[in-house]
Amino acid sequence: GDSAFVAALATLFRDRFGWDIGPQNIALTNGSQTAFFFLFNLFAGPGPDGVERKILLPLAPEYIGYADVGIHGDIFVSRRPEIEHLPDRFFKYHVDFDALHLDETIGAICVSRPTNPTGNVLTQAEMERLSSLARQRNIPLIVDNAYGAPFPGVLYTEAMPHWEPHIILCMSLSKLGLPGARTGIVIANEEVIQAVTAMNAIISLAPGNLGASLTLDLVRTGQILEVATDLVRPHYWAKVQAALPRLHRALEGVDYHIHKPEGAFFLWLWFRDMPITCKELYERLKARGVLVVPGHYFFPGLAEEWPHRHECIRMSYASPPDAVARGIEIIGEEVRRAYRDA
Amino acid sequence: GDSAFVAALATLFRDRFGWDIGPQNIALTNGSQTAFFFLFNLFAGPGPDGVERKILLPLAPEYIGYADVGIHGDIFVSRRPEIEHLPDRFFKYHVDFDALHLDETIGAICVSRPTNPTGNVLTQAEMERLSSLARQRNIPLIVDNAYGAPFPGVLYTEAMPHWEPHIILCMSLSKLGLPGARTGIVIANEEVIQAVTAMNAIISLAPGNLGASLTLDLVRTGQILEVATDLVRPHYWAKVQAALPRLHRALEGVDYHIHKPEGAFFLWLWFRDMPITCKELYERLKARGVLVVPGHYFFPGLAEEWPHRHECIRMSYASPPDAVARGIEIIGEEVRRAYRDA
Repeated sequence: GDSAFVAALATLFRDRFGWDIGPQNIALTNGSQTAFFFLFNLFAGPGPDGVERKILLPLAPEYIGYADVGIHGDIFVSRRPEIEHLPDRFFKYHVDFDALHLDETIGAICVSRPTNPTGNVLTQAEMERLSSLARQRNIPLIVDNAYGAPFPGVLYTEAMPHWEPHIILCMSLSKLGLPGARTGIVIANEEVIQAVTAMNAIISLAPGNLGASLTLDLVRTGQILEVATDLVRPHYWAKVQAALPRLHRALEGVDYHIHKPEGAFFLWLWFRDMPITCKELYERLKARGVLVVPGHYFFPGLAEEWPHRHECIRMSYASPPDAVARGIEIIGEEVRRAYRDA
Repeated sequence: GDSAFVAALATLFRDRFGWDIGPQNIALTNGSQTAFFFLFNLFAGPGPDGVERKILLPLAPEYIGYADVGIHGDIFVSRRPEIEHLPDRFFKYHVDFDALHLDETIGAICVSRPTNPTGNVLTQAEMERLSSLARQRNIPLIVDNAYGAPFPGVLYTEAMPHWEPHIILCMSLSKLGLPGARTGIVIANEEVIQAVTAMNAIISLAPGNLGASLTLDLVRTGQILEVATDLVRPHYWAKVQAALPRLHRALEGVDYHIHKPEGAFFLWLWFRDMPITCKELYERLKARGVLVVPGHYFFPGLAEEWPHRHECIRMSYASPPDAVARGIEIIGEEVRRAYRDA
């Protein structure tokens, strides 16, 4: 079942996007998280040459789930982003290329695109520059495509899927409705795929094949691309369009900013100079039955202090509309109270 | 889905076997192999106290799949077994308790029961003695129950399922027909379960839940026990009963010995003083389309040389009867030729 699925994926990517790949360029893992555990420990940690390597996250905030995967402790180094303010209280993070120092201690670059937690989609120019830096340094650029193109396609901006031999593209079937199947897909050059396959054998014996079986026909026919663009994307787009006006109303009078939602299914809210920390806000919201994730968890590898870390929260808009609407009201009440009572 | 399955398992084991367990004593993993990767690296390798710990395999041959799971290199120490000769060219391995030295460098004891590759089922007395040694040393006894009781129940001898707080029992749904679901089950004390759950979160995010969903009703009703005894066990028992007379005929005149098949679905064949190595025999069989596993791979952690390692092969009798019969004929021909041409 697995080999048919891998062959169908290779054909799909070759035919639709012109990538020069075959089944030897694809490995399955028990979900994306396992893929990142493999890849990060493959490219970071103490090397046979004695050099201790790190994974560079060019832009924090970045995915909370990376934080603890290093077998040999903390393996990340990340950088503060540049902040671009946009109309209507939106903002967007950008990579601060001047702050990136790629010396021989950097084993790989990794970005999530769209980014969990912010919904940021790195621009085409940013991706090209990161790809070029990685190629020059002869290290991989790992792209966490859990929400990205061509599937699941939870994207509200143009983002062409792209692959080259120094790029490692990680995908998943989770956001197509199969989180419990734990199907991660790694697309990379043959050397990396062989390493992932060896790690699979040792750590997992074999990856689960139920997700592959369930979606084989969707991949063979290419319908998985239409599922992404015609079903998944409009579903979340409608949700974010409903959430935004509610947020603007609920937060009126507060110095709030919303990261431009370009993909994934989170909104990243920034309360500038909020008198309490996001952790405290999280506690107050939890007490009222509203679950968000305090923003300071999303800065793996960022060594320096930065007040911004404590001014943001991640909220999901994936829940039923009524629950999201009620949650936004309560967020508004608690944030206003936090500013007012200071 | 997972939590219902775990609760149902706890109820089943409590009601049917009287174990003092609840859901807090059970964790799921993406298959048994992942469970062993977690457990071995939890109890072996460099400790916070600076001591480098190993996993003791009291009896080699032992499962080939353990061999490479150590993050910090080789983490096993194993012992040669005692060999008991039985009628009809059968033999059985036993633990050589005099050879077991349990000092502070032993982090855990591990046995597979039934054993892959030999089909050996450690006796009740051996298990009690190993359990007692582990308890005295305050280390866990890890029991790999991939083929064992109460399910999948690929067992042809009496072996009561047993659990105590210092025992870590690892089970699987693979041999109930769901290898691709990758559902491993760990039963242990709460402290171990919490560690496994934490490793799950970091390395797998969450275990797959399709195996749990598919078998939930079987566990709730307890029918999973009857599936084991009424379907799985007779299926393999018929196969081994068909294979044995064929083997005796095919190997007549050779100094062959067969490990008493007490469980799993392998036969472990020992060709005493065979003039070629099992590796060479494997190559010759492969050239004729018969796949066996050469025995020398099944001695993880055995430091000393021992000619016996190169005199054994593992054959499976799980294939269709005609294929097994034809394979046995060819094994007979090649083994006779090996002795004759020496």
